[in-house]
Amino acid sequence: MVYSEKLSFVSDYMEGCAPEILQRLAETNLVQSAGYGLDQFSGKAKEKIRLACGDPEAEIFFLVGGTQTNATVIDSLLRPWQGVVAAESGHVSTHEAGAIEWGGHKVLTLPAQEGKLSADSVAACLRTYREDENRDHLVMPGLVYISQPTEYGTLYSLTELEALSSLCREYQVPLYLDGARLAYGLACPENDVSLPDIARLCDAFYIGGTKCGALFGEAVVFPRHGAPDHFFSMVKQHGALLAKGRIAGIQFETLFTDGLYERLGRNAIQAAIRIRETLERLGYQQYIVSPTNQVFVLLDQAEKDLLTEQVEMGFMERTPEGAYVMRFATSWATQPQDVDALISVLEKAKG
Amino acid sequence: MVYSEKLSFVSDYMEGCAPEILQRLAETNLVQSAGYGLDQFSGKAKEKIRLACGDPEAEIFFLVGGTQTNATVIDSLLRPWQGVVAAESGHVSTHEAGAIEWGGHKVLTLPAQEGKLSADSVAACLRTYREDENRDHLVMPGLVYISQPTEYGTLYSLTELEALSSLCREYQVPLYLDGARLAYGLACPENDVSLPDIARLCDAFYIGGTKCGALFGEAVVFPRHGAPDHFFSMVKQHGALLAKGRIAGIQFETLFTDGLYERLGRNAIQAAIRIRETLERLGYQQYIVSPTNQVFVLLDQAEKDLLTEQVEMGFMERTPEGAYVMRFATSWATQPQDVDALISVLEKAKG
Amino acid sequence: MVYSEKLSFVSDYMEGCAPEILQRLAETNLVQSAGYGLDQFSGKAKEKIRLACGDPEAEIFFLVGGTQTNATVIDSLLRPWQGVVAAESGHVSTHEAGAIEWGGHKVLTLPAQEGKLSADSVAACLRTYREDENRDHLVMPGLVYISQPTEYGTLYSLTELEALSSLCREYQVPLYLDGARLAYGLACPENDVSLPDIARLCDAFYIGGTKCGALFGEAVVFPRHGAPDHFFSMVKQHGALLAKGRIAGIQFETLFTDGLYERLGRNAIQAAIRIRETLERLGYQQYIVSPTNQVFVLLDQAEKDLLTEQVEMGFMERTPEGAYVMRFATSWATQPQDVDALISVLEKAKG
Amino acid sequence: MVYSEKLSFVSDYMEGCAPEILQRLAETNLVQSAGYGLDQFSGKAKEKIRLACGDPEAEIFFLVGGTQTNATVIDSLLRPWQGVVAAESGHVSTHEAGAIEWGGHKVLTLPAQEGKLSADSVAACLRTYREDENRDHLVMPGLVYISQPTEYGTLYSLTELEALSSLCREYQVPLYLDGARLAYGLACPENDVSLPDIARLCDAFYIGGTKCGALFGEAVVFPRHGAPDHFFSMVKQHGALLAKGRIAGIQFETLFTDGLYERLGRNAIQAAIRIRETLERLGYQQYIVSPTNQVFVLLDQAEKDLLTEQVEMGFMERTPEGAYVMRFATSWATQPQDVDALISVLEKAKG
Repeated sequence: MVYSEKLSFVSDYMEGCAPEILQRLAETNLVQSAGYGLDQFSGKAKEKIRLACGDPEAEIFFLVGGTQTNATVIDSLLRPWQGVVAAESGHVSTHEAGAIEWGGHKVLTLPAQEGKLSADSVAACLRTYREDENRDHLVMPGLVYISQPTEYGTLYSLTELEALSSLCREYQVPLYLDGARLAYGLACPENDVSLPDIARLCDAFYIGGTKCGALFGEAVVFPRHGAPDHFFSMVKQHGALLAKGRIAGIQFETLFTDGLYERLGRNAIQAAIRIRETLERLGYQQYIVSPTNQVFVLLDQAEKDLLTEQVEMGFMERTPEGAYVMRFATSWATQPQDVDALISVLEKAKG
Repeated sequence: MVYSEKLSFVSDYMEGCAPEILQRLAETNLVQSAGYGLDQFSGKAKEKIRLACGDPEAEIFFLVGGTQTNATVIDSLLRPWQGVVAAESGHVSTHEAGAIEWGGHKVLTLPAQEGKLSADSVAACLRTYREDENRDHLVMPGLVYISQPTEYGTLYSLTELEALSSLCREYQVPLYLDGARLAYGLACPENDVSLPDIARLCDAFYIGGTKCGALFGEAVVFPRHGAPDHFFSMVKQHGALLAKGRIAGIQFETLFTDGLYERLGRNAIQAAIRIRETLERLGYQQYIVSPTNQVFVLLDQAEKDLLTEQVEMGFMERTPEGAYVMRFATSWATQPQDVDALISVLEKAKG
Repeated sequence: MVYSEKLSFVSDYMEGCAPEILQRLAETNLVQSAGYGLDQFSGKAKEKIRLACGDPEAEIFFLVGGTQTNATVIDSLLRPWQGVVAAESGHVSTHEAGAIEWGGHKVLTLPAQEGKLSADSVAACLRTYREDENRDHLVMPGLVYISQPTEYGTLYSLTELEALSSLCREYQVPLYLDGARLAYGLACPENDVSLPDIARLCDAFYIGGTKCGALFGEAVVFPRHGAPDHFFSMVKQHGALLAKGRIAGIQFETLFTDGLYERLGRNAIQAAIRIRETLERLGYQQYIVSPTNQVFVLLDQAEKDLLTEQVEMGFMERTPEGAYVMRFATSWATQPQDVDALISVLEKAKG
Repeated sequence: MVYSEKLSFVSDYMEGCAPEILQRLAETNLVQSAGYGLDQFSGKAKEKIRLACGDPEAEIFFLVGGTQTNATVIDSLLRPWQGVVAAESGHVSTHEAGAIEWGGHKVLTLPAQEGKLSADSVAACLRTYREDENRDHLVMPGLVYISQPTEYGTLYSLTELEALSSLCREYQVPLYLDGARLAYGLACPENDVSLPDIARLCDAFYIGGTKCGALFGEAVVFPRHGAPDHFFSMVKQHGALLAKGRIAGIQFETLFTDGLYERLGRNAIQAAIRIRETLERLGYQQYIVSPTNQVFVLLDQAEKDLLTEQVEMGFMERTPEGAYVMRFATSWATQPQDVDALISVLEKAKG
């Protein structure tokens, strides 16, 4: 195995995929199958995901990446006069190069606490629209977007998710959950939200593959036969329809066989826990105490320079006081010996 | 190896990928790399493609699929008041679920001969716009789209391509070539248009991976530093940016190593030649004499029923007289013994 | 009164408006009223139009111009995966600078006879989509657009309109009629389609003001409480909502008082009949025998040059044989003495 | 003259238009002219506006309404990967039913002070984008939108406008000014920004007609030959092109003849000053001290109920403490005796 020279904790999409996936791709390589997701592998993958979600009526589609999935699902669930409610820090609000607006929809941003929307602030948004006499001149909130884990690695508790779901149903606004890093949420000891909970409480969500051990791929789930009209054509129109849909199907079939998805998640979480414990022990200040695979640390200039010599981290932002918010991301692929090495670097920097 | 029960010549995207690609994915699987196409593998792939195109200044991007690539490139090359000129039978005119219109642009369709646009008809279109006093009320032709091979498997000759290119330059309208099946064009004995010719004569084109032996992927080439402004952001906005860009990069690196792309193309062409010779020998009528990997045959009801019992074909359309236009597609993965079997079926049907 | 120096029959939107409208604007000028079409004048205008249409449940909105109206109505009636079926010569297909595509929708063009769609060709289009196994990769025909009178001044007969309406209902595709020049159709002796017929047979239509005697304005009618969801917001979003909606309301109130709309139409038709009779008498060849306010004549170069010295006409196109297709448009404002003068010019040119 | 029964200060678009405009429409009514803004009246109006702006090279277009104008100008000045920077309270951010997003662009909102953007906050926004390593994943700020007067009736000083302009030029980002109520800004004693200043400092702006005495109409000005490419087609595509462009042209010709635009503005300002003086004298609390034609007052429930019996006001919002923010809007049409009556009502309510 070949490694890059420096330790790297920059992101969770720096390697290829779980070896089980490569092996399954090789085994099935010359089997012929129908195109566009109508193949036998995708069929089996959907069955396994329905089982994992506890929803035999869920409709499932395999798309390629997160921004694409968000844009396609949001465009399919919204009507032209509607926008999507999201946290200011939500992926759709910030890092998708305007894909939602390009599709014609406003992102109605709300302030968030550590990446999370509160039911109260969403309620205020929905109520304000409903009560405004001039609401026909406004963008109607037509969908609520959340991510689990959030962009800050935090998690909605079951109680919080139930509150949002209940509110959305009261206002008849669908709830959509972005699970780009869902494996890392599901594997987290603090987490009390299961896949069947998500399927029960949301109207659409996706189970992330790209950041959780697949070469690429996101599994979009519409619980309870809830796929929007002509979603297949919407996927095609968004350039999101794989000719060889099997390649996504084979990956998700593998991820949902023998508990692989959970296992991949656990690897990242165990590594993150070790890093967080080290930071605490050594007196590093964490920016946000995220329970999942992203660890956010506050460093001063000297610490940052010192660490950077030996380890690659993600730069998030600078605080008004000038400190650096840096991120260590662990993943399905993180090796224990790399965590050992990182711990040793962290110790030396504080030494 | 596992096969489906019936012989299948339905399409050229029914298997996984060239084994060399799987092997290279396995070799590199745990190497860490940057995301979004900024990795070392994509870098090498681009170098190899620049070399193959004879254009050291070409700018290259790896996208996922054909419709996505067409939409992203066309949206990037057109301004809002412009449309794209294409054959009535062009992929962008027909089978992309309105992706081009969804991006805000009209497809200005022209009649085509066997899938090809003539320079004369394009010239008439460009001139008509230029001379119309009310042109500001019309959609301006802002790009010419062709496919090589075309949707009917036919090829532009070098002379034809030069005529189109020269015309486009006269009118300062870019020429864009869709090479979804380019391997099958390049490997065709009748073909006299090389990759360097395409790079010299076009302003944008893509080298197809999905239908030519990759799991997925299309290599967009903008010759002579010609990438449109902020193309990277346009790719992201279109949901076409792979987080693990390396997966596309590794595939194209492999396809352009040791002549693999040509070899994969030749396999399909040799099979297609054997099928066409058989059809001629047995007196079957071909709908269009395509020189590449798609073979179009006219069958009456009885012939179609008989063949369908043993072989899967693609249905194209019915002629006004009621005959069936059926397609045999060969590919990089077509096995000689399957061609033997098909020949035997064709012989029995005429027996 | 001031005239331009040359006789002009270039178009039907060269003057201001019917004097009755100006007078009513003056009378009501300082009356205060609510904005955005919620005023008393718009209310009365809607009542009068409902009465004229024989549909007490019709929902009515006043927009500004034809392209805007077409785009707003079509975008509101279509879902993203759908396109609008129209004649190749339809206004939405040609002269709207791509406004329909800008809204994300394909115009599915069909060949037309003298500007008209036949029920047969529409049926073939709808059936083809329904029967195509790959229809999810195509644009779904979601609306049928016709114009009455057409861009060539021709009229659908009641029988033809009933056939289209019946077909559209069978396929559950709405029928939308563009009545930019409707006054000139309704006033035409050959016409057998009344406003109540249109309201009964169509799902949406607009009664043209701009070309029929108003300063501007088109009255969109959705029969039988059939306005699309949130149409008001769609109008606002399209920039088509007048702050002073009263200005459109007052105009339509006036047009539908004391038979003004019919009277304005008749003025144009009487002038057009005199011109057509003259052309026939003198042996001029008409390009299309249009019964409404547009008269299309074929001229050779010499005739065209001669006439152009004294009268402004509209240039349509050149025939393959080199003849000029020129248009005389009459209108609500055409003066009898100008028709006299034109007749005299036509006589001299043949003399 | 007819009045509604209650005094009304609800908005500045409740009447028809300045009588001078109606008179000029009547005088010119039967003069024939070319369509689409190519007429003699529009030509003269443009000359007068160029003169008033002190820019003989300004390119000018007449559109119908504010939302339409904002959408058309912004879509024409931005490329697809760009968004428009605006105050949170800006009209484009809030009350246009998502027209900007429908055109594909994000509104990048910044906090504002009394409706105004500060150069500092805009600078931070532009710098942040420029310095962000991941900026290709973000929406690029491509235009700065301000309104003068703002939605809160406040004004940018010349110093403030110069700072914004200088910043925009440093970053090569155009500055666009929405002058929906410009007459009321220009006529305001506190104002030190002239039309030539605006033309000198902005890259695009519009002079509002609809709210300033016209039936409808906004004059878009691109100083220094600065109209975006193919702006005419963009106007058409946005459904914003008037067939009878003359109707807008005649109105602006009249507004810019003999100082009418200034006179109309002064009428509103004089009325607003009298109302503000009364409020101060009587101890009413103003929500924002706006110097232009909008007067914002804080009322408790009892005051609001009492006033509402005799005068129509605009409701803005409720403060967290439960007070009502109400608006009195004066206009070109406000009658001195109505202001007298309002003052008397205000006195009684405090009595």
